[in-house]
Parts: sequence; C-alpha cells; structure tokens
Amino acid sequence: MAKNAFYAQSGGVTAVINSSACGVIETCRKHSDKIANVYAGRNGIIGALTEDLIDTSAESAEDIAALKGTPSGGFGSCRFKLKSLEDNKREYERLIEVFKAHDIGYFFYNGGGDSADTCYKVSQLSEKMGFPVQAIHVPKTVDNDLPITDNCPGFGSVAKYIAVSTLEASYDVRSMAATSTKIFVIEVMGRHAGWIAAAGALVEDYGIPVVTLFPEVEFDKDKFIAAVDAKVKEHGYCSIVVSEGCHWPDGTFLAEQGTRDSFGHAQLGGAAPVVANMIKDALGLKFHWAVADYLQRAARHIASESDVEQAYALGAAAVEKALEGKNSIMPTVVRESSNPYKWSIGEAPLSEVANVEKMMPMDFISEDGFGITAKCKEYLYPLIKGEAYPEYDDNGMPKYVTMKGVGVPKKLPEFEI
Amino acid sequence: MAKNAFYAQSGGVTAVINSSACGVIETCRKHSDKIANVYAGRNGIIGALTEDLIDTSAESAEDIAALKGTPSGGFGSCRFKLKSLEDNKREYERLIEVFKAHDIGYFFYNGGGDSADTCYKVSQLSEKMGFPVQAIHVPKTVDNDLPITDNCPGFGSVAKYIAVSTLEASYDVRSMAATSTKIFVIEVMGRHAGWIAAAGALVEDYGIPVVTLFPEVEFDKDKFIAAVDAKVKEHGYCSIVVSEGCHWPDGTFLAEQGTRDSFGHAQLGGAAPVVANMIKDALGLKFHWAVADYLQRAARHIASESDVEQAYALGAAAVEKALEGKNSIMPTVVRESSNPYKWSIGEAPLSEVANVEKMMPMDFISEDGFGITAKCKEYLYPLIKGEAYPEYDDNGMPKYVTMKGVGVPKKLPEFEI
Repeated sequence: MAKNAFYAQSGGVTAVINSSACGVIETCRKHSDKIANVYAGRNGIIGALTEDLIDTSAESAEDIAALKGTPSGGFGSCRFKLKSLEDNKREYERLIEVFKAHDIGYFFYNGGGDSADTCYKVSQLSEKMGFPVQAIHVPKTVDNDLPITDNCPGFGSVAKYIAVSTLEASYDVRSMAATSTKIFVIEVMGRHAGWIAAAGALVEDYGIPVVTLFPEVEFDKDKFIAAVDAKVKEHGYCSIVVSEGCHWPDGTFLAEQGTRDSFGHAQLGGAAPVVANMIKDALGLKFHWAVADYLQRAARHIASESDVEQAYALGAAAVEKALEGKNSIMPTVVRESSNPYKWSIGEAPLSEVANVEKMMPMDFISEDGFGITAKCKEYLYPLIKGEAYPEYDDNGMPKYVTMKGVGVPKKLPEFEI
Repeated sequence: MAKNAFYAQSGGVTAVINSSACGVIETCRKHSDKIANVYAGRNGIIGALTEDLIDTSAESAEDIAALKGTPSGGFGSCRFKLKSLEDNKREYERLIEVFKAHDIGYFFYNGGGDSADTCYKVSQLSEKMGFPVQAIHVPKTVDNDLPITDNCPGFGSVAKYIAVSTLEASYDVRSMAATSTKIFVIEVMGRHAGWIAAAGALVEDYGIPVVTLFPEVEFDKDKFIAAVDAKVKEHGYCSIVVSEGCHWPDGTFLAEQGTRDSFGHAQLGGAAPVVANMIKDALGLKFHWAVADYLQRAARHIASESDVEQAYALGAAAVEKALEGKNSIMPTVVRESSNPYKWSIGEAPLSEVANVEKMMPMDFISEDGFGITAKCKEYLYPLIKGEAYPEYDDNGMPKYVTMKGVGVPKKLPEFEI
C-alpha cells in the first residue's frame, strides 16, 4: 500500500523555499499510486514532534502552484535543532512514532546543515527501530554553505537582491556626492561566510567604486579607511558592502548586540552604522546606511530565475529519488558550465553533508581583501541570472499565497518538547 | 531663433526622476524647431552657477530613452538651496548671466519645494533683468509633500517598494514566529509626513498584523507596546513600520543621531533598532529590524508603473506648456477617479507651490494612530499600481544607463559659490 510523505521546512526561510515545497508536493501528487498524501510539519520539525501535521491534500492545485511564487515558509519553519542521539534519543524516537502512526514512509526535510544532520539520524534510527523511513534532505540556505552542491537554493535570490540593490543605491549616492552623501554602506547577511557580501561586490563590474568587508578577512581599520579614502578621491563617492559577520582580529563582531538566538548564535545587526560612523570620524564624509535584514531573504519580487528553478527541481528530485529507493541523500546542483550556464541534478550522501560547512574559497577574494576575483564573478553571475517575477493583483501588490493549513487528526498522546 | 533649454535635478533623487528627464529631453527633441538644445546642470543647479553644463545632444536617443528605466539622477543632483533674493541676489543674477551666455530661454527644474521656490524667483528676476526665462517646475519628491498636485513622482515607487517589502518580510517573520523571531521592524523615510509609512500599513489588507508609527502622531510608548502586545497575542507575531520622523511629545526624534545635513535638517536613521529594543525590553520578544534608507528611493527594479508614466508625462508636459507660452508654473497630476484609476495633467502657479508643504490629512490615519483609513488606502493603491520593470543583461543585472556627460565650453569668468 502507498505510504504517506512528511515534508518540513527548517531554519531561516528564503524567497524560494516554497518553490522546493511546490516541487515536492506536485511531484508526490504525480505519483499518487506510490505516495498517498503529503503531511507537512506545522512550523517545521516541531510539527512532527507535537504531531501537528498539515494535510496538504486540502490545498488546491492552484494554491500549491502559487507556492512557487511566494516567499517565506508556507507551512511555517522553526529554529529547533534536535540534540545528539545520545543526549535526546527520546525526540528521535518520537519522530519515528509519529511517522509510524501516520504511515509515513518518506521524510523530506528542507533546510541547511542542521536539518541535514537530523535527516541523516532519522534515516539511521528508523532502520534500527524496524520502521524504515526514506529520509531525503532538500537543500536550502541563503548562506550557501552546504557542501558538495554547487550552490544552495535561496542564495541566488539574496545575491540578486543585494547586487541589484547595491547598484541602485550606488547610482543614488553618485548623484548626490557633489554636495551631499559620499558614502553608502549596506549591511548584508552572512555570519561565517561572505557569499552574500560577494554578490554586492559585483557592482564593481558596473563602474561602481565599492569596498567589501568579508567575515573571512579580519577587519583592519586603517587599511579599510585608506581603501575608502582612495576610492572617494578617485570617484567622488564610495559604496561599502559589510557582512554582518565582519569582525575584529580578536573575533568580536563589528555589530555585536550581545543577544543570542535559540541556537546560541550571536544575534547580529548594526555593522553598517558602526562602519559609517567610523568613516565619518576618520574622513569627515557624509554617509547613508541601510540594513537589509529579512528584506534580502524574503525578496521574492526580485528572485533569480535560476534559483527559483533549482529550488523546484531539487524538491522534485527528492521525491523522484525516494521513489527510486534512495535513502539518506541530498539532491545537489551540479554545474556543467558557467557560460553558457548549464546545470544538472546530482546527489550526495547525507553522511558527507551533515555538519560540514562550505566556506568561500580564498581565491574568490581579491588580494587586498576588499573585493572579489574573476573566478568568483564567474561563479556568481549564473546564480543571479534571469528574473522570475511573481504575479501582481490590481492594487499593485504581489499575489502571495497563504496555505489553509488544515490539521491532521492526532493519534498519539501529547509530547512535551 | 530657437533658444536652448536648461534642465536640472534637485535634492534627493528617486527611482523615476530620470523618467522625467527623459520626458523633458525627448519632448524638446521633438520640437527642435523651437528648442535648439537641452543643457543639463552637472550636479543640479550648481552646474548652472559654475557654468558646468552637460550637452545632452551628445547623448544618443537610445541612452536618453534608457533614462526612463534608470534610477538616480542621471545628470547629478545637489542639496543646495539658493538663499533669499535679499540675502544673495548675486547667485540669482549669476544664473541669469549663464542663461544669457548660452541663450537659454527655458528653465526646467526638477525637484521638491525648495526648487519650486528657486524656479519661481528665477522667473521673476529674469523678467526684471530684461532676459525673460520661462521657468517651469517639474515635481519630484519621495516625500509626496508638494501642494496642489494629487501626488509627486518618486513617491509611488517608494510606496510600492515599502508595501511589497513589508509584506514579504512579514510573511518571513510569520514563518519563524513559532520558535524564533516574532517582531519585524522596518524603518522608512519621511521626516515630517507619514506618506511612506502609510504605504507599509497597506499590508493590513493582506492579513498582516502591523503597527505603524507616523511623524504626525506623537509617540506614546505605553500605548505602542500595548498595541504590539495585542497583535502578538492574537497572531503570534507583528510587523512594525516606523517613520524616521517618529518623535516623542517633546519633538525629539526616536532616531536622532545628532548630525545635520547641509540644509540644517537633522540627519536621521536608527529608529528601527530603538523601537525593536524597546519591544524586547517590555515584552521579551525576539526581533529583526531593517533600515531601507536609499534602497527604497532607488529601487527602480520594483518601480510603480503609474509613477514611471506620471514622471515622464510631467516632464513632457513641462516642455509642451513652455511652448504654449506658460511661465512660472508646475504641471500637476489631477486624479479623475480612483477606481478605475484615471488621471490627467493640470497645472499650478509656482506662487502657490513654493514653500507650501502638504501634510498627510489626519483622516488618513486610523483613530488609534497606528494604522490607515479606507480613504487613505483608496488614495494609495492607484499610486503603486502596475509594474514597470527595467531591462536586464545576461548576467542578471539591470541595464541602467550612465550619461556620457560631455561638457559645454564655458564662456564666462569663474564664479565662487
């Protein structure tokens, strides 16, 4: 008899994670002889633990299709990392009990490194517990830090948003520089890796003087001020792209706010005003600064077409591979060529994905540490290629869909997380 | 013999001020029998004072057409307000000397309230000095604060950007709220008027719990915290749109940084983190915040089609009206109906425009002071209607044009500003 599938979204959401959800659900629906129904976790894996499942069969084909054009996590996500098997076997066992109670044979988990790890463990433990579940991880992270895959869905759209926005704001400051603002600072996401900041650095190809601050490069104030001063002397203005993860040699973030999220990561924000005031103090230049924050990862209105398509294709491939009998893997993007851009779908074993963080190669950063190399640009452009606009209503607002979110009746006792 | 025209961009630039430039220049080119050439001020009115004129005839028809799809001020702008005639007659006289030297009979000045005032004075003084110049003001300001015209080009596109971005980020925080971020704060432009903030408040129509802070309403911390608390209790999360001009009852801005721009206005920025931390202290909720700053007014990639068309039409109308013999006026947008949206071009005498600031009507703000009324929504939606996407290149970047900017040979002695 056909088993059910379980799908959940994990961690920070993106402009295209719903495109992956769409790929998973539409592909499952095509194979209704083998996959009876898709249950989605309400607010991610927490929905599985608390048996709070959404019956996706209650969502119309139109609404599921509209997920492809809607940012955010349509079923809700969560920041909740299961502890190690040794520390909290109870949670893993509960997951498998819930899967058993709802006859779930497929687990599609859409997230970053932490969720790849959970996915891997569920696959191992379910085997041992005599209720084998095929666990497939669908990659998603704006941080672009998963190994093996050429890139991660979510990143291309943030990269496009940041490249376009930095270009636009740079044109603005160029217009104003004669008598007013000469410095524009944009702060972008990226705690450990400078992938998103690198996308801002692309504006150099469009005639913009730009200095980029990466988390990979220890912040050197004197060198930075000298670099900005030189650009302003030559061009009359300068844009600065600063990663939230930019830090001093002792490891202190420029932006440290002193608060931490539920994973224990420092909550950042505010590197832009720090950098802007530093320039004002040293060079006396008028500045403006922006902090893009959620705007960058939610900006479905300027999503990259490559990214939307890959997010969908990886969701669809997860289902196809599960039906081929694959288990404990993650479908990946394989780059065939950059120019013309060609890609295909590959796969990676979760044992090689879980808990491995891919950093930006050091040969992607220019020698002075403030820009990117030709190799980096060749990597980035294909990922921001093409526009995949959402539909708009008569008011001029995008048509984003909200799921009905009908719950599946519970069968198990309550569970305290 | 056909006289030349002078065109200049003034003050903060927008996503569509170049669309007005395109309207002016293309319309002048159509009437080359009456208008010989268009000289543009390099960096606005400063270009006129220093006789630094750009010969727009050196720009190709394709490049001039591309201005319609390019944000920022293509000829450069400036923040430079001419003093009163009594205090600095020298500057006005210099302007007219430059116009005389280059046989300029038409002055098209594209800006906000300050430039309307300059335009008015030039028209008056040129008459007295025996070299009459037809001075036409082309409205532009994201602040939407010019009188008589229904709205100001530049505003509709910022409004669309803020409405769309607030919706997207609100979907994001809704996805995360179960275990993580429950509060998203976006700071928007608007020192004195809450027009831009009001655009963010539109997301209420799309199911988003939102609390908006206007400069028109004195900030009441207890009432604000209670409003946010109620929304979070009902919906699990809340978005906050805060105007940079939001202030305490004593007039102090929430965001005051202590610095002032060249007009003596306080330079703002940073209301968002102030508000976010206030909520965290009072309610203990995890937050994210964004400051859109220049991104909002430069965002040609999500410009409103209404706005792009009106900016062009007002530039074109300025030239047509000049050729009809009009002087000392500003073409305006006249709203014929909101639904369906119909508008036409009218005109206003500069004597009634100069130095009058249009505030948001108090019946546009809801009774509790934290939202907008149906009347406000009826006003706003037509202004964000339609998408007018720029073209993109093969890299995935927008095709924005940069002017050649060929200088016109100088004829006069130097002038110290």
